[in-house]
Amino acid sequence: MGQTLTEKILDDHLVEGELTPGEEIGIEIDQVLTQDTTGTMVWLQFEAMGLDEVQTEIAAQYCDHQTYQFDFKNTDDHRFLRSAAGTYGAHFSRPGNGICHQVHKENFAAPGKTMLGSDSHTPTPGGLGELAIGSGGIDVAVAMGGAPYYIEMPEVVNVRLEGELPEWATAKDVILELLRRLSVKGGVGKVLEYTGPGVETLTVPERTTITNMGTELGATTSIFPTDEKTEEFLGILGREDEYVEIGPDEDADYADEIVVDLSDLEPLIATPSMPDNVVPVREVEGEEVEQVIIGSCTNGGYEDILPSAKMLEGRETAKHTEMIVAPGSKQASEMLAREGWTAEMMAAGVNFSEATCGACIGIGHVPASDSVSLRTFNRNFEGRSGIEDDSVYLCSPEVATAAAIKGEIVDPRDLADELGDLEDPGFEMGDKYGKSDADLISPDEAIDDELIKGPNIGDVPLKDPLSENLKGEALLKMEDNITTDHIIPATSDILKFRSNVPKLSEYTLSRVDETFADRALEADGGFLVAGENYGQGSSREHAALCPMYLGVEGVLAQSFARIHKANLFNFGLIPLEIDADDYEQIEQGDDIEIVDDVREAVDSGQEEFTVRVNDDWEATARLDASERERAILSAGGKLAWTKEQAEGGSGAAPADD
Amino acid sequence: MGQTLTEKILDDHLVEGELTPGEEIGIEIDQVLTQDTTGTMVWLQFEAMGLDEVQTEIAAQYCDHQTYQFDFKNTDDHRFLRSAAGTYGAHFSRPGNGICHQVHKENFAAPGKTMLGSDSHTPTPGGLGELAIGSGGIDVAVAMGGAPYYIEMPEVVNVRLEGELPEWATAKDVILELLRRLSVKGGVGKVLEYTGPGVETLTVPERTTITNMGTELGATTSIFPTDEKTEEFLGILGREDEYVEIGPDEDADYADEIVVDLSDLEPLIATPSMPDNVVPVREVEGEEVEQVIIGSCTNGGYEDILPSAKMLEGRETAKHTEMIVAPGSKQASEMLAREGWTAEMMAAGVNFSEATCGACIGIGHVPASDSVSLRTFNRNFEGRSGIEDDSVYLCSPEVATAAAIKGEIVDPRDLADELGDLEDPGFEMGDKYGKSDADLISPDEAIDDELIKGPNIGDVPLKDPLSENLKGEALLKMEDNITTDHIIPATSDILKFRSNVPKLSEYTLSRVDETFADRALEADGGFLVAGENYGQGSSREHAALCPMYLGVEGVLAQSFARIHKANLFNFGLIPLEIDADDYEQIEQGDDIEIVDDVREAVDSGQEEFTVRVNDDWEATARLDASERERAILSAGGKLAWTKEQAEGGSGAAPADD
Repeated sequence: MGQTLTEKILDDHLVEGELTPGEEIGIEIDQVLTQDTTGTMVWLQFEAMGLDEVQTEIAAQYCDHQTYQFDFKNTDDHRFLRSAAGTYGAHFSRPGNGICHQVHKENFAAPGKTMLGSDSHTPTPGGLGELAIGSGGIDVAVAMGGAPYYIEMPEVVNVRLEGELPEWATAKDVILELLRRLSVKGGVGKVLEYTGPGVETLTVPERTTITNMGTELGATTSIFPTDEKTEEFLGILGREDEYVEIGPDEDADYADEIVVDLSDLEPLIATPSMPDNVVPVREVEGEEVEQVIIGSCTNGGYEDILPSAKMLEGRETAKHTEMIVAPGSKQASEMLAREGWTAEMMAAGVNFSEATCGACIGIGHVPASDSVSLRTFNRNFEGRSGIEDDSVYLCSPEVATAAAIKGEIVDPRDLADELGDLEDPGFEMGDKYGKSDADLISPDEAIDDELIKGPNIGDVPLKDPLSENLKGEALLKMEDNITTDHIIPATSDILKFRSNVPKLSEYTLSRVDETFADRALEADGGFLVAGENYGQGSSREHAALCPMYLGVEGVLAQSFARIHKANLFNFGLIPLEIDADDYEQIEQGDDIEIVDDVREAVDSGQEEFTVRVNDDWEATARLDASERERAILSAGGKLAWTKEQAEGGSGAAPADD
Repeated sequence: MGQTLTEKILDDHLVEGELTPGEEIGIEIDQVLTQDTTGTMVWLQFEAMGLDEVQTEIAAQYCDHQTYQFDFKNTDDHRFLRSAAGTYGAHFSRPGNGICHQVHKENFAAPGKTMLGSDSHTPTPGGLGELAIGSGGIDVAVAMGGAPYYIEMPEVVNVRLEGELPEWATAKDVILELLRRLSVKGGVGKVLEYTGPGVETLTVPERTTITNMGTELGATTSIFPTDEKTEEFLGILGREDEYVEIGPDEDADYADEIVVDLSDLEPLIATPSMPDNVVPVREVEGEEVEQVIIGSCTNGGYEDILPSAKMLEGRETAKHTEMIVAPGSKQASEMLAREGWTAEMMAAGVNFSEATCGACIGIGHVPASDSVSLRTFNRNFEGRSGIEDDSVYLCSPEVATAAAIKGEIVDPRDLADELGDLEDPGFEMGDKYGKSDADLISPDEAIDDELIKGPNIGDVPLKDPLSENLKGEALLKMEDNITTDHIIPATSDILKFRSNVPKLSEYTLSRVDETFADRALEADGGFLVAGENYGQGSSREHAALCPMYLGVEGVLAQSFARIHKANLFNFGLIPLEIDADDYEQIEQGDDIEIVDDVREAVDSGQEEFTVRVNDDWEATARLDASERERAILSAGGKLAWTKEQAEGGSGAAPADD
């Protein structure tokens, strides 16, 4: 029987295990990616492991989230990251050079490679046939040390594309359609592999919009086969020699198949405040819009902004609508500027920003109170824009630009009818990407050979090994779909403490309950209780690290988002699954006790645990964990475990991982 | 006897008084300018006065300080300002359209006009022969109502320019040389009028660099005569019809004369942390530089950035040096982009920002800890960059760019020798400024006809009339040269509360003493004690409003900066001058009592007041105030006074001002 593309790449990189869905496999990692809000912790962990040099083919450290540098702590972080990249042999992308996924796509993404990144949108290069997975930072640190990455073998789902996109429908509408159909939980435990005749109708930048936002489906990753379009794109980037033709076997066996007929699509929009609240734009026409932003790792490339520029040529944005363009990379900015589009857009009323994640994580251009913002981003979780009760819609650059022109939500087809002279700008590829190395410092050009730590860059806290007895209060009871933005917000006033765990921890779950952090510290132990899909969203490991620092021992949830669950193991917090009835019965403030010798049970592979509530009734909780995850949990987290392994005398820690 | 240019313009606009230095005069105001951090209060005050429409020829509301919009409060402020401009008939410049002084220069500044602006760098259009004065916001609100502006007739000093700038010396070096000679107090109570054969060697953008930074000398304003260069510049702007030839009479009588031979100048730099710490660049060569920023209202024009672009062509910035360019206006950005310079600079490693004041007031691009930042700005007060113990140097774009290339401070003449192929780029004027009205909404195009207030936009607090008895603790004793940045910092975490006085007041003087605000509120009355030049720096009226809110009754200082002193009157705080010996003797915590019926004494014109300290010894304090200032102080501040006048039955309040 033939193999899927995913299986082929995994097979090529397999170090341990078998490619059976649900089984843990260990794979070799070719490339790693870190950014500025997760990267400091990764490098501190790398330092703590005592290794001299990065072992992957490519490691790249980007500065993209905090490039406005509101606080010296941000600037210190960037300097620290430059020094870490230089010291340990990684590429360093300076602040202002762009968003990691976009810059990585332009410079390093290559067919057939594996990548691990400490950012949830790491799967972006799947559009070029790279198998790229987002993970907690500690997994990246360990992979940088040359150790395999362990993961449950996901199911591979065939997303078969047929037909061709009609006028005004875009790649963004493909992924929005999938979100509409599958929901934000629809991809959990799966790799979405795109196949079918529709593939060749899409360029690489369109494919990467789709793979990027596969993250919002909860997918482990998304991947396209390579073809002439891939070769052409690598050629434009000056990297034609990295082209490899790869794809699934004709008789590949998929766990499931989803068919999307591209020709059926129309302009779609995700309404507030979840990426799967998708409706046709026409259903929400007429809503007044005060802000439009084009950019992000989903739609921030040259090819994404160009249609907007063409639509704005000779026009102006509505007077009450502020339009901001934050390109995904300086490369994109430079190309747009060189061709005169930047000047055109400025004349139309666009406020051109530096290349940054910025507003996508609530850093800058926070919407006004009680106002609608249309963005080409990938997430619109409530409050993520930096203001509670926000109204953020997600859409294509074309839909966003139409709204900026009219000042209200409008289907661009209707706007075209109204204006008479507005045409679908289509999707045009750049001719040639220039490659200035001014902002991407290779390991050979590195200027630092030791770490430069500012006063806000602290040490990594460690946890004790797992206790025999785990008991404590149900500190907080939460609903379904709690995001890592709820657990540790990423707004600028908070993000600056990413390298300062005690301070950052004060904000833990403050969006759900402002008293939580104080109560948790006081309680000195306890549990979180949540519904389904706990920990969805960004990959930030601080969402596990901070609860750990506050003394949380574990999480009882109906289900967990994949990356966050791995982070819980990595920081020594036990993730236990409970069923809906028990979830309903447990109240905040209840006394929770796990009625087992927990450490021994974890070590011995026990799957069911008895949870005693208020010394009154009992629930059953399941621990779904591999042998390796159990060992990590037992040791008190991955760093403790890695050190333990190293002290065990078998050489450099990650070699035993 | 002939008149100076200053006297001619004042004469043309004189409503009350005589042009005798030291005497109060009332002048008609043609144009007013407000920005986003002072403007909200101005419009709230305008609203409180109950007027329907702005009465000046031109009123322009700019959004430039907080354009990154870190917080919905900033975005709400911008929306409120748009609505206020629309409602009352002002031009509105959208966030991202640039810095007020630069945009005003491009669009409205005109020879022979008078302007009042709620920003300390309002004098910038003096480079085009406009007499422009910075004031507290409340004075602007009153002027918008059509009332005269009252000011002590300043001395007019002749700054005679001879010769011509040699290679690599720039307009920035002219003003730095004046700061070196005269200090930050050297211009207090004076208008600096530029004359002599050197004038015609300077273009208008060079002249406005000089007039802009006259503010750092403490000057009331600075002004150049008009000539062919002015006419040419207005022509490039498409406003040739606004040209008027104006200048001093040949036999004009000046209070003083300063001669600057331009040909003697060389690249200069202001070292940390005061704009008058000026030395030749060569004296500080070799200092490692981590950050270079080009921009601000001093050097953010197209013509200021162009030399930097030329120097960077085909070169790269040093790897350890981040270079940010924040143009002064979108017009400048657009011209640079249209001509390909933006793309060149990006390729060289420049991070291009939106057009904003930004980093100049500590908003974004805060330097790393323990690092040197070179900026083309006008101020380097300690901590203003957003980090305490900063090392900010001020210099020309050429010196800044040389440092970015070499990675350390270097005289560009020495860098030119070193590189062999680096030439002085000279100062080239733009050909033609395009005029898109996308971002500058005229009163005719206004879309709002009522105020839109977000939840953080509050009311203006009022003070009771002056008491008969003034007594209280010396709440805080301060040194010389306390800036308004010390009194109310303008960093982003604080600036967002500009429209929310109770919250903002918590930060009053926190840089000097973190306990101050709490202590002042508790004490319920009391005094500030300071050395010379109290309140220098920005014009922010919150530096008087917040102490008023906290219960401060007055300030005892050796001397006051002009704008801040006016703000103290406007908010009902008595500014008393004490001599050096008494200043030395008063200790923080002493009991202070003014031994007079204070209200009656103020009303009756009494100049000397007896200050009883600890019921033990007495000092003499002087109140230097006009009749009008006394009436305002007595009423409890300008707003109370304006209302009082209005209720007195003589029609609209400002008509009686």
